[in-house]
Amino acid sequence: MDLREMGARAKDVSRILGKLGQTEKNAGLFAAAGELEAAASSILEANGQDVDAAVKRGMHAGLVDRLRLDGGRIKAMADGLRDVAALEDPVGEVESMKKRPNGLLIGRKRVPLGVIGIIYEARPNVTADAFGLCFKSGNAVILRGGSDAIRSNEAIVAAIRRGLLAAGLPEDAVQLVADTSRESARELMRLNGYLDVLIPRGSAGLIRTVVENSTVPVIETGTGNCHVYVDATADFQMALDIIYNAKTQRIGVCNACESLLVHQSIAEKFLPLLKERLDEKQVEIRADEASCRLVPGFVPAAEEDWGREYLDYILSLKQVGSLDEAIAHINRYGTGHSEAIVTRDYGNAQRFLEEVDAAAVYVNASTRFTDGAQFGFGAEIGISTQKLHARGPMGLRELTTIKYIIYGDGQVRP
Amino acid sequence: MDLREMGARAKDVSRILGKLGQTEKNAGLFAAAGELEAAASSILEANGQDVDAAVKRGMHAGLVDRLRLDGGRIKAMADGLRDVAALEDPVGEVESMKKRPNGLLIGRKRVPLGVIGIIYEARPNVTADAFGLCFKSGNAVILRGGSDAIRSNEAIVAAIRRGLLAAGLPEDAVQLVADTSRESARELMRLNGYLDVLIPRGSAGLIRTVVENSTVPVIETGTGNCHVYVDATADFQMALDIIYNAKTQRIGVCNACESLLVHQSIAEKFLPLLKERLDEKQVEIRADEASCRLVPGFVPAAEEDWGREYLDYILSLKQVGSLDEAIAHINRYGTGHSEAIVTRDYGNAQRFLEEVDAAAVYVNASTRFTDGAQFGFGAEIGISTQKLHARGPMGLRELTTIKYIIYGDGQVRP
Repeated sequence: MDLREMGARAKDVSRILGKLGQTEKNAGLFAAAGELEAAASSILEANGQDVDAAVKRGMHAGLVDRLRLDGGRIKAMADGLRDVAALEDPVGEVESMKKRPNGLLIGRKRVPLGVIGIIYEARPNVTADAFGLCFKSGNAVILRGGSDAIRSNEAIVAAIRRGLLAAGLPEDAVQLVADTSRESARELMRLNGYLDVLIPRGSAGLIRTVVENSTVPVIETGTGNCHVYVDATADFQMALDIIYNAKTQRIGVCNACESLLVHQSIAEKFLPLLKERLDEKQVEIRADEASCRLVPGFVPAAEEDWGREYLDYILSLKQVGSLDEAIAHINRYGTGHSEAIVTRDYGNAQRFLEEVDAAAVYVNASTRFTDGAQFGFGAEIGISTQKLHARGPMGLRELTTIKYIIYGDGQVRP
Repeated sequence: MDLREMGARAKDVSRILGKLGQTEKNAGLFAAAGELEAAASSILEANGQDVDAAVKRGMHAGLVDRLRLDGGRIKAMADGLRDVAALEDPVGEVESMKKRPNGLLIGRKRVPLGVIGIIYEARPNVTADAFGLCFKSGNAVILRGGSDAIRSNEAIVAAIRRGLLAAGLPEDAVQLVADTSRESARELMRLNGYLDVLIPRGSAGLIRTVVENSTVPVIETGTGNCHVYVDATADFQMALDIIYNAKTQRIGVCNACESLLVHQSIAEKFLPLLKERLDEKQVEIRADEASCRLVPGFVPAAEEDWGREYLDYILSLKQVGSLDEAIAHINRYGTGHSEAIVTRDYGNAQRFLEEVDAAAVYVNASTRFTDGAQFGFGAEIGISTQKLHARGPMGLRELTTIKYIIYGDGQVRP
């Protein structure tokens, strides 16, 4: 089936999905979850073929781990759909309905976006997660996963569609692009008139390609070069705990800390403690000259280190002479994801919150909290680092838009 | 100056603008308004040169009228800036600040987008209007108007910048791209890293070019193929008044009615009345076969008429057998702008509001109300027909985004 036909089907189905009540949508999610579990053996078989082929092609072990499914992971996908069913449905709420002087009653009604495209790589769990969030928010979704996971994705989508059908719901609520060529991705990026938004999930390279080649609206999700700035008045123990957590609690994620700024007035006392704490996890610290002189064992940083998202046990470190310098550095090298200050100074805390340009700005907390579940959204489809439409973790609400509904009794414009 | 340098300046200045309070921003708007009035003669001289050159090149009279300034229009531009000063500043509000179970206090703070690009054609008043809205919402703006208005725009921007400087504010809050070649427009569309959003204002062709060629986020503003659907139970007088208003009150605007759907059960009685009413303004009615048989004087419509935005005294007309057929027709041929039903039936009114996919959906009112001032926003920078970020009239609030601000006391992620 070609992409235009898939787009037309998705658009047709989105009209139906937009009108469904929460009861029907939840029934669909539960039915899909049941079918995923019932189809576990066929999904695992398909996944086994994907994994074998990937290993044969020499895929990196970390990526193979993300690709590989087991019984527990399939159960987690199914439970994820049930968790989404428990979330409040944002669709249909009317905000700020007001009467205008001429008697027109104008309100903002929350409605689904319509048709959402997701482009991702070799993580089959994204298939079920993305379907769940899109479906609950009343959207049709077109999924285009990577070629490495195509057999797994086909088995997962087939199970979800069987569930929808059994629940009396349109199975085209979720469609998978079977053709995993570059051409199909490019075509999806230009499916104007059918796709209301395209969300890339995956590596920085994938996201860049989508941003540069799409003519449909895109929500850019996030690479994170996240900083922790240790202010002159910081509580050392708190700073060490936050840095240790933000850097090492999970290294491969976009809200992990990649770069540290330390006020020069505390560097001599603080940096040896930092080294000691991060040595527990053998974190390599790439530091500016002044810091390297203070602490043996720091590795000299190059200019490009300030802009790196390591996703590894590596941290860049720079001393700054002032809060201004810290903010300027972050606004220059950061990716607009998550930024934190550790301080006991009221004014500095407020200025950092005000002047740092990022989706999430923290005082005295770990950057690792930028996450839909941690923010109380229940689940998320990604973390937006752009400023249009959605910024930060995107939950169900960010997969909706508004339309103005206007009740009149014959008003015409004078 | 090249566009990257302009972008860098705008980005620098946007940090300052984002922190300004309402008092300072209003002082800047008043100072700019004063300078516009003080510079009236030099603006008119520059505009005269633009108009002469345009006439010599054979520009259409309607376009020349949009290009031409006079004392009244300059005063209107200045007053427009003062009106924007009177609007409430959306920046800085913190929404839904909530405490999480771990004690983190998380709120959504409204902040400027940063740097906004506006691409437009030969309407010099857009120059002052766009500056006013962008400035009041704390954004730096890069303006790229058409070559036909370049002298006028340069004079207007120079006056505004003098005003900002006199008020002690950064004049780079507004910059005009002096190079009006196609290349400069293309470069602006790809100014990623500097522009947070690009808003095209003008013809359908301009908007299409921007959507197709931009790599920066775009807000698509609106062509409007707006429908009025006259339901079987409609009050005829109300329907005639609404259609007459929506079609003829102002023909060159995006919220004018371009197409009419009439329930077949009332066609025989209603259509002759319609013809009589629209004859007052010599509106040409391009109708389907069934309607042409009923009323002499209707012109046979071709298939392409259903998708046309005439912006003229022309209206397409089609009979439909049901509300479903009306909704399907609108969702197929509409541009997602403004759609209206005239009815006395509760269920049909609610279904129309629910199922029509457009920025503004009306019951028993003219489509001409889709407008920032009419909606109570005070002013607008355009009407969005896309679903991301902003839909419908875009006021000050739509030129902002949010960032999450998080107050902690040492929280780390378990």
